[in-house]
Amino acid sequence: MEKLTPHNIMLMLLSLGILLGVARVLGEIAQKFRQPAVVGELLAGVLLGPTVLGSLAPGLSLFLFPQSGTNAIALDAISTLAIVLFLMVAGIEVDLSTIWKQGRVGLKVGITSIVIPFFFGFLIAWFIPQALGKEQDVTPLIFALFIATAMSISALPVIAKTLMDLDLYRSDLGMVVVSAAIFNDIVGWIVFAVVLGLIDGTSGEGANQIISTIVMTIAFAGFMFTAGRMLIHKMLPFVQAYTRWPGGELSFALILALFGASFTEWIGIHAIFGAFLVGAAIGDSSHLRERTRVTIDHFVSFIFAPVFFASIGLKVDFVTNFDFPLVLTVLMIVCTFKLIGGTIGAKWGKMSFRASWTVGFAMLSVGAMGIIVGLLALEAGIINHRLFVALVVVAIITSMISGPAMRLILKPAKAWRLEDALFSKLFIRELKSISRRDVIHEIVQVACKEFNLDLNEVDSLVWERESALSTGIGKGVALPHARVKDLAYPLVVVGISDTGIDFDSPDGRLANIIFLVITPRDTPDSQITILAQIARLFRNQAMHQSILQTKNFTDFLALIKSRSAGSKEDE
Amino acid sequence: MEKLTPHNIMLMLLSLGILLGVARVLGEIAQKFRQPAVVGELLAGVLLGPTVLGSLAPGLSLFLFPQSGTNAIALDAISTLAIVLFLMVAGIEVDLSTIWKQGRVGLKVGITSIVIPFFFGFLIAWFIPQALGKEQDVTPLIFALFIATAMSISALPVIAKTLMDLDLYRSDLGMVVVSAAIFNDIVGWIVFAVVLGLIDGTSGEGANQIISTIVMTIAFAGFMFTAGRMLIHKMLPFVQAYTRWPGGELSFALILALFGASFTEWIGIHAIFGAFLVGAAIGDSSHLRERTRVTIDHFVSFIFAPVFFASIGLKVDFVTNFDFPLVLTVLMIVCTFKLIGGTIGAKWGKMSFRASWTVGFAMLSVGAMGIIVGLLALEAGIINHRLFVALVVVAIITSMISGPAMRLILKPAKAWRLEDALFSKLFIRELKSISRRDVIHEIVQVACKEFNLDLNEVDSLVWERESALSTGIGKGVALPHARVKDLAYPLVVVGISDTGIDFDSPDGRLANIIFLVITPRDTPDSQITILAQIARLFRNQAMHQSILQTKNFTDFLALIKSRSAGSKEDE
Repeated sequence: MEKLTPHNIMLMLLSLGILLGVARVLGEIAQKFRQPAVVGELLAGVLLGPTVLGSLAPGLSLFLFPQSGTNAIALDAISTLAIVLFLMVAGIEVDLSTIWKQGRVGLKVGITSIVIPFFFGFLIAWFIPQALGKEQDVTPLIFALFIATAMSISALPVIAKTLMDLDLYRSDLGMVVVSAAIFNDIVGWIVFAVVLGLIDGTSGEGANQIISTIVMTIAFAGFMFTAGRMLIHKMLPFVQAYTRWPGGELSFALILALFGASFTEWIGIHAIFGAFLVGAAIGDSSHLRERTRVTIDHFVSFIFAPVFFASIGLKVDFVTNFDFPLVLTVLMIVCTFKLIGGTIGAKWGKMSFRASWTVGFAMLSVGAMGIIVGLLALEAGIINHRLFVALVVVAIITSMISGPAMRLILKPAKAWRLEDALFSKLFIRELKSISRRDVIHEIVQVACKEFNLDLNEVDSLVWERESALSTGIGKGVALPHARVKDLAYPLVVVGISDTGIDFDSPDGRLANIIFLVITPRDTPDSQITILAQIARLFRNQAMHQSILQTKNFTDFLALIKSRSAGSKEDE
Repeated sequence: MEKLTPHNIMLMLLSLGILLGVARVLGEIAQKFRQPAVVGELLAGVLLGPTVLGSLAPGLSLFLFPQSGTNAIALDAISTLAIVLFLMVAGIEVDLSTIWKQGRVGLKVGITSIVIPFFFGFLIAWFIPQALGKEQDVTPLIFALFIATAMSISALPVIAKTLMDLDLYRSDLGMVVVSAAIFNDIVGWIVFAVVLGLIDGTSGEGANQIISTIVMTIAFAGFMFTAGRMLIHKMLPFVQAYTRWPGGELSFALILALFGASFTEWIGIHAIFGAFLVGAAIGDSSHLRERTRVTIDHFVSFIFAPVFFASIGLKVDFVTNFDFPLVLTVLMIVCTFKLIGGTIGAKWGKMSFRASWTVGFAMLSVGAMGIIVGLLALEAGIINHRLFVALVVVAIITSMISGPAMRLILKPAKAWRLEDALFSKLFIRELKSISRRDVIHEIVQVACKEFNLDLNEVDSLVWERESALSTGIGKGVALPHARVKDLAYPLVVVGISDTGIDFDSPDGRLANIIFLVITPRDTPDSQITILAQIARLFRNQAMHQSILQTKNFTDFLALIKSRSAGSKEDE
C-alpha cells in the first residue's frame, strides 16, 4: 500500500504544527485588536508561504510546504477535510427558525442585500470585464455570474461574531441582520453551486450535464431543507438513546457531513456545499445537544479552521499578485452595493435611518465565505491570481470595517467585562493589613499609585460606602467599591489574605479575597455589571479555594477566564 | 501546487464516511456486548478491506480504498494524524502522580508484569524463532527484542475501561492495576523506541547512529518527564490567561503534540512516541482544565481512533494470513507469562490470593497498544503479515478475556444503572388514571403483564409502601417502589400524566412523572441505587419540563442518557 515514509511523516507533522501554531498566535493577536481571527490566520499563510518566507528563504518555505509530491497531497487532504468540517459548523450555526421568527424585515434585508449587489456586480462584470481582470479564455457569462455571486455573499460567522462583540446579537436589530445573513448564505451558496455546475458543463460535457448538475443541486438543497431535515430530527433521539453519549451523536453528525460533502462533490459542485447543507439540517434539530455542538465547534474553530485559512496563504504570492487598481475596484463595488443593498432592505422594512445604516454595515462583511468562494473560483480557473488576491484583501477589509463602523453609528453601551478591569499591578497576593479599615487603605493606595488617582478622595469614598453598609458578601469574599470622577475605565484591585479579615459578612466568615471595584462616575452601569460578574464567579463552590491556591496574577487571570467562560456555557 | 482532483476529494470523503460509519456502528455493538470498542472498530477494517469486501467484490474494495495513488496517500496522511492524536490522548490519561501515590505495590506489579513476559518472550524468540514465524532476513536480536516487548506491553485505555465497567477504577485494587499499567506503558514504549532505533541502525547506518538514536530517545523521554513537564505546567496558566478560552489551551496541546511527534519521527523512532510523551506531560499538569481534556478526548476517541483502527484492517488480509498454530503459540505465551507476571507482582506486594489473580487478569489486556506495536513492527519489516495477524488476534482475545475473567474471580456487586432497567414496553406516555391508588394499579399492571409477575402481590406491596409514607418527592415527581421475590433484574415503569396526580408531595405540586421501581428482593442495593439515580436527574431544573415534552420512549431514553452523562461530568 502506498504510504508516507518516515520523512514524509516527520515533515507533515512539523509543517502542520508550524501552520497551526503561527495561525493561532496571529489569530489571537487579531482578536486582541477586536478583529476577526480569520484575518490573523490568513496572514499566517502569507508569512509562511511564497509571499514572505518564500522570498526571504525560498528553500525553507518549499521544504516545509512543498508544492508537489506526497507531502503536498497530504496537506491538501487535511486542509480539504478542514474546510468541509468548517462549513459543517457554519451550517450548524445557521438557525432556520430565526428567519421565520424574525419574519419580513429580515427577509427584505436578505433579498435586497443579495439582489442589488448581484445585479450591479453582474452588469459591471458583463460590460467592463477587463476592469476586473477577466482572462480571455473564461466564458463571459460564467465570469459575470461568478462576480455577481462573490459580490453578494455574506460571512455569517464573522457577522455573528461582530454582533456578539457589540452585544447586539440578541437585539431586534441583531436578529434582523442574522436572519438576513442566513438567507443570504443559503441563496448565495445555491447560486454559486449552480455557477460551478455551469463551468463543469462548459468544459466539454454539454448542456445535459449542466442541467443535470443544476437540477440535482437544487433537488439536494430542497431535500435537505425538508425531508432530510425531518429525517435527521427523527433519527437524533435514536442515536442518543441507543449509543454511548456523546460519541454517537458526534460521529453521526460527522459521518452525515462526510457523505453529504462527497455527494455534492460527485454531482459536480464543491464538497463544502454538501457539508454546509447537512450542517444546517443537523443544527436545525432541537434534539441536537448543546454539548455536542460546542465540542464540534471548539475542535473545528480552533484546530481545523486555522489550518485551512493559513493554507490559503500558501497557495498564492500576495505581493506579486497584488494589483492596487483591481483591489480598489472590487472594494468600491462591494462597499457601494452591499452597503446600499442592506440599508435599502432595512428602510423597506421600516427601520429607522440610523438602524438601517447599521444593518447595511453589518451585512458588509464578506469574510471567510468570500475567500472560500474566491478559492473555488481560482481552482476552477474562472479567475486569475490577481483577482483572487483582490477578493481576499477585500474580504478582509470589509470584515475589519464592519464592526467599527457599526460602533460609530450606534455608539452602543460598552460591554463591561471584569477581565478588562484586572491588571497585574493591581494584584496583591498577600495583604499586610488585618483590619477592615487598614485593608481598604492598603488596596486603595495601590490603585491610586498605579493610576495617579487622588488617594484621599478615593479612600474616603470607599470607606464612606463601606461604613454605610458592609460589602462582605459571605463565602469569604468582600467587594468594597466606589465611583470616581475623571477615571477613563473601571479598575479592580484584587487582594488576597490567607489569614482573613472581618468584613462583617452575613455568614460570619472572614473575607480572604477582597475585590476593590473603582468605576468612572459617568458610567454607573459599569459598577453594577462588574460587581455582578464577581458575585457570579462565586456561585461555583470551589472558586474561593481555587483563588487562594493561585500563586500570582497569571494563575488568577487564568482561573477567572476559564471558569467564567465555563459557567456561561453551563447556564 | 499538487493537489486533490474533484474525483479524489469525492472518493476521500466517501471512504472516510464509510470507514468511520462502519467502525462506529461495530464499535457500539461491541460495547453492547461489554467488549472494548476497538474490537468492533478493527472488525470494520477487516470487513471493508481485502479480507471480506476484497474477496467478495475486489473492484469495489479497491475503488473505495485504493492501495496506491493520491487517495492512498490522503487516507494514510489522515490515519497517521489520527494515531498521533490517539496516542496524545493515551498520554493525557496517564496520571504520573498515581504511581507515586499508589507506591510500592503498583510498582512491583509494573516491574514483574514487564520483566517476566519480556524475559521469557525473549528466550522463546531467541531459541525457537521459527515457532513465531521469523523471516530469514531479520536480525535475531532485533526479532527477539521486539517479541519480548510485544509480549510485555499493556493497553492502559482498555484496562482503565474494564476497571470502570466493573466499578473498580477507584478501588485500591484498581489503583494498583492502573499505576502498574502506567509504569508498564512508559517503560514498554521507551524499550520499543530503543528497538526501533536499533533497526534503523542495522539498516546500514552503523553503530554511531544506533547509539545516537537511543541516547536521544532516552534524553527526550527524560526531558519530557522533568523539565518539559514543568515548563508546560508553567506555561498553561499563561495560555489560559492571555488567549481566548478554551481555544488557546486546545491548540497549545495539539501544537505541542505535533511538534513532539515530528521530533521523535526525526530521531528515528515513531511519531506516536513523541505524541504520547507530550500528552503525558500535559495531562500531568493540574492546570489542564477538565473541559479541554473532555473536548479532545471525545473528538479523538469517537472520530480519529475509529478511523485509525479501521484503517489497520485495510492493510492486511486476515483470512489468508491467519495461521492457527502461530496464533495459538502467541496466545499461550502472552496468557501464561503476562498472567504470571501480574499475579506474582501482586503477591509480592502482599495482596490476597484472589486479588492477585484479579490483578493478573487485569494486566492481561494487550489491546490497542499491542496492535500499534505490531503495526509499527510490520512496517519496519521486523515481522511478516502472519505474525502481525496473530498479534492483532491475540490483542483482541486478551482484551475480551480480561473483563469477564475478573468478573468471575471477584463476583463484584453489579453496577445498577437506571438505563438498563428502562424498557419501551414499560413506558406509558399518557396515564389514564387520575388518583394515586388507580395510577399505581395502572402502572403495576403494565409491569406484571410484560414480565409475568404476580399482579396482586406486587400491587399490594407497592400500595403498602405508598400508604406508609408517600413517595412524592416534589418537583412533580413520584417514585413508588417495592422489592419483589423471583425477579431477575430491576424494572422501572415510567408513567407520564399531563394533568398530574396528587402524591401528597412535600412541595404540594401534583406529580406528572411517576417512576415505579421494582427490584429483586435479594439485591437490596439495587433499589437504593436506582432511586438515587432518578432523584439526581431532577437536580437539573429543566428536566421535568423536558420529560413532559418527550413524545415516546426513544425521546425519553435519549434525554435520560444525554442528561445523566452530562451531569456526571459536571460533578
